[in-house]
This record gives sequence, structure tokens and C-alpha cells, in this order.
Amino acid sequence: MKFRRSERLVDMTTYLLEHPRQLIPLTYFAERYSSAKSSISEDLGILKETFEHRGIGTLQTIPGAAGGVKFFVKVSDEESKPFVQQLCEMIAKPDRLLPGGYLYLTDILGNPSIVQKAGRIIASAYAASSIDVVMTVATKGIPLAYAVASQLNVPVVIVRRDSKVTEGPTVSINYVSGSTKRIQPMVLSKRSLAEGSKVLIVDDFMKAGGTVMGMKSLLEEFKAIVAGIAVLVEAEKIEERLVDEYISLIQLSDVDVREKRINVKEGNYFLKKGRGK
Amino acid sequence: MKFRRSERLVDMTTYLLEHPRQLIPLTYFAERYSSAKSSISEDLGILKETFEHRGIGTLQTIPGAAGGVKFFVKVSDEESKPFVQQLCEMIAKPDRLLPGGYLYLTDILGNPSIVQKAGRIIASAYAASSIDVVMTVATKGIPLAYAVASQLNVPVVIVRRDSKVTEGPTVSINYVSGSTKRIQPMVLSKRSLAEGSKVLIVDDFMKAGGTVMGMKSLLEEFKAIVAGIAVLVEAEKIEERLVDEYISLIQLSDVDVREKRINVKEGNYFLKKGRGK
Repeated sequence: MKFRRSERLVDMTTYLLEHPRQLIPLTYFAERYSSAKSSISEDLGILKETFEHRGIGTLQTIPGAAGGVKFFVKVSDEESKPFVQQLCEMIAKPDRLLPGGYLYLTDILGNPSIVQKAGRIIASAYAASSIDVVMTVATKGIPLAYAVASQLNVPVVIVRRDSKVTEGPTVSINYVSGSTKRIQPMVLSKRSLAEGSKVLIVDDFMKAGGTVMGMKSLLEEFKAIVAGIAVLVEAEKIEERLVDEYISLIQLSDVDVREKRINVKEGNYFLKKGRGK
Repeated sequence: MKFRRSERLVDMTTYLLEHPRQLIPLTYFAERYSSAKSSISEDLGILKETFEHRGIGTLQTIPGAAGGVKFFVKVSDEESKPFVQQLCEMIAKPDRLLPGGYLYLTDILGNPSIVQKAGRIIASAYAASSIDVVMTVATKGIPLAYAVASQLNVPVVIVRRDSKVTEGPTVSINYVSGSTKRIQPMVLSKRSLAEGSKVLIVDDFMKAGGTVMGMKSLLEEFKAIVAGIAVLVEAEKIEERLVDEYISLIQLSDVDVREKRINVKEGNYFLKKGRGK
């Protein structure tokens, strides 16, 4: 059965969005729709233009016999700026302040459409980077890590605070929490990470950076490489910031628990994303 | 600026996939593309046909002044059956067996494309149901819960084993694990669930069902209602199954740790999904 162009465009859009960073040979689409390669090429031209024009992503064409197309997510600043601004307003509400300068973010992190969008924005910064795996620490960072990883087409590994039977053998380290100065364990399943992996660390919140430092030490045990660090929210003005190279969507400052005051602004994402982090 | 039909189709597909179960007025699209409502109606006709034909979902048209369109995910059996079959083959490998009859699923649950697809399949069974929130228990169920919730356009609430400062005030219960018979706590942030919410419970693995029973008791404390229970994998032939009404994608049987043997087959999903669970 033959497909009309309109049907092909709808189906190809769905397919490409679900298969980011994967090389799809033209012949795959030609067979899927019983159409000539020349028609598929024209379709892809329309897709490429629309994806770029609408701030959905980019479509890379690889010529030759082993060629095809690859979709990369790329959220435009026109779309991401208002989203980050809206998040800032949500976060600035004083009743989010918890003891110790922490913030109640559970409702925001529990909203899949917010998390997916934040994930697409973060993934835009790394779409062209060489990344093998996204790493996060249980529990709150998990949804964002998956949202990023699904756009980068890589697996997620989850570091835990304790070992569980369902993980099989594990590797464990101890790290010092940057803000509480307590010593805590960090555990990762041995099977879950291959030597030499290029790892993007993703987390929901970074205060002094102790947790991220812990993840870096754990990665050394696995002889893996830190390819990037991305957080949704960073608490600014921490005197001893342990981690330097990272991107954040949102930055807190002047957190005053007694006065119930927080200043919330755009993170360093819009400055850093273009410069290879 | 005016948009051609082909561009509109690509952009509308992206928009609808990202906004499931939300009523989008025709005027929204008419303004977005500076196009006549009649053209938008024709576009939606093409989308509806293609979504159904390709097993992507359904498009419901609500007529009248307050009307519009709603996209519902609906993965066809032609697509979901081979996927579940492939998962069965992955799971049947004997080196996944861990002490106590547990299975190593970390690599499968760490693969966002598998988790997303499983989530779309489970969400297909509940797309038309009235569900306010998806609930899961930390840690392993979280990715699947988000994958389901993002298709149902509802928030996720995460039950924990311990309380954390970042959760604010919590409600806690004790439950008896069905397989180990141990008493364990279960904690949920007070702010995270409204009274009377209709809750879909999602988890990665169900053995005797003690964890799910615990979540049900916790929901009683919140005066919330269980609208459904869905798991990726269930262990069959547990003598005292505590939970009756659920759907599963995969079923284990004859787990023999000493002989390193597992039987893996399709769960009850394909039997139950049509019958309102």
C-alpha cells in the first residue's frame, strides 16, 4: 500500500521524535511507506525546515550508501526562555522554603510535562556531544535524568545510598556532603557501567556540590569520564562551591529561611550551552 | 506569516504528542498557523486517520464553541505484542536470576526507550479512564511511572521508605512485605496528594503484592481511590497473591534459582486492557 505525503510526514515526525540521535537509513522510510527514495528525500527536507523553524530540533543528513538521517533535539531560546522564567516564578513562592535552606520542589518534579521540557532543554546543550550514559542519584534526580537520556538515546544509571538485592554486586564509596559535612555512602551496581563510559551527570538540585563530587569519585572507580554536569536548580553564593563546570536552568540566591525570602533567576544555561560546557 | 499544510502537519503532530489528553481548541491551531479553521479541520482529519492507521493513538473531536481536539495514546497490538515478546526474551536470560528469586532488571529499566514504550503501552489501557495521579514507590518504579503519567497528562507522586527534609511534612504507615513478611515503613509527603484523588499505581515488579497493598493502605489515609494497578513484571504462582485487580506486561513462572531457570511469558495485559481493568 502506498502512502500519501501528508501521512508520511505525520508518521515520520512521530518516528523521528521517538528515535533521537539514531541513524535512520533512507531505505527504512522508503520501505515503510513503499515510496521512492526521492520522495522520502523531499519529505525530509520539509521536516528539516519545519523542525528548525518551529524550534523542535535539527535533522542531520548523512550522505552515501551507509547514510541516512539523524534527529537531534534543539529547543530554541524563544521557547526555553519563557519556560525557565515561568519555573522561576513557580519556585519563588516563599512557602517552598524548608528548614536548612532546602526547597520543596516535589510538585514541580512530579509534573511530567515540566520535567520532559526541562529534559529537552538540557539535552539540547549536549545533543551534539559524545555521551554514553546519564548518571543520577536516587531519588529526586531520576525523572529529569530519564527526560534528558531519552532525548540523547542513552541509558540511565542510578546511584543509590544503600545497596539492594535486586542490583546484584555493587561498588561503594563514601563521600562528604558539601553542605552538611556528613560522611555518606554511595552505591552503584557493578554491571551498570562499562569502563571508559562518557557520563553526563544530571541532578535536580545542587547546593555546595558534594553529591556531584561523590558521583565523580564513584566514576573514577569505574574508570569512567565526566562528560558534563547539569542541574535543574543551583543554590548560588555557596562559599565553597566544589564543582565548577556545570550548567543550571535556575539559580537561587539570598535564601533567607527566617524572613521567608528567596531570589530566583535564570541559571547559567543560556550563557554556557553554546560553548561546549 | 502563513504556513503550508505540510509544515502544519509536522508541527501539529509534535504538539499533540507532547500534549496528550488536553483539549486543544481549533482556534489555538488557527492562530498558531494564521490559517482558516476549515483548513485546520482538514489537517486534523489527516492526523486522525494516520494516528489510527499507524497505531500511534486516537484523536477525539469535541464539537461546539468550547470544543477542540484531544489526543489519546493508543499503541496497537501489532506494535505492542512484538515489543512484549522481545522483552520476554531479554528477561529470560538465566544470569538475571538473583538470590531470593529476584531478577536483575536494572539494565532494562535503565533504557529510556524501553521504559517509554512500556509506559505508552500501559497508558493505552488507561487513556480513557478517569485518573488524577500516578503513584509509585521509590526507586525502581519511578521511570515507568513517569512514562505512564506523561501519556496520561497527570502528576506522579512517589512513596518513599524513609522521610526526607525536602518532602516537608509526611504521612507514614507500616506494611508487611508479602514475600519477606517483614514490617516496613512507607512515607508520602502530605502536600503531594489531594483528598479523593483517583490514583493509578504503577510499579516495575510485583511478587506477592505486599508493596501494592501498602500503597493501598497509604491511599486510604489520604482518602484517595485506587483507579488501577499496573506492573511491568509479575511473578506468577505466588500462593498468597494479595492483589487481584491489576495488569502486567510480563509474567514469570517456574523461577528456580538453583537450576537457573525462569519461564517468561506475556502478562495479562492483552486479556485485561479492553475490559476496564
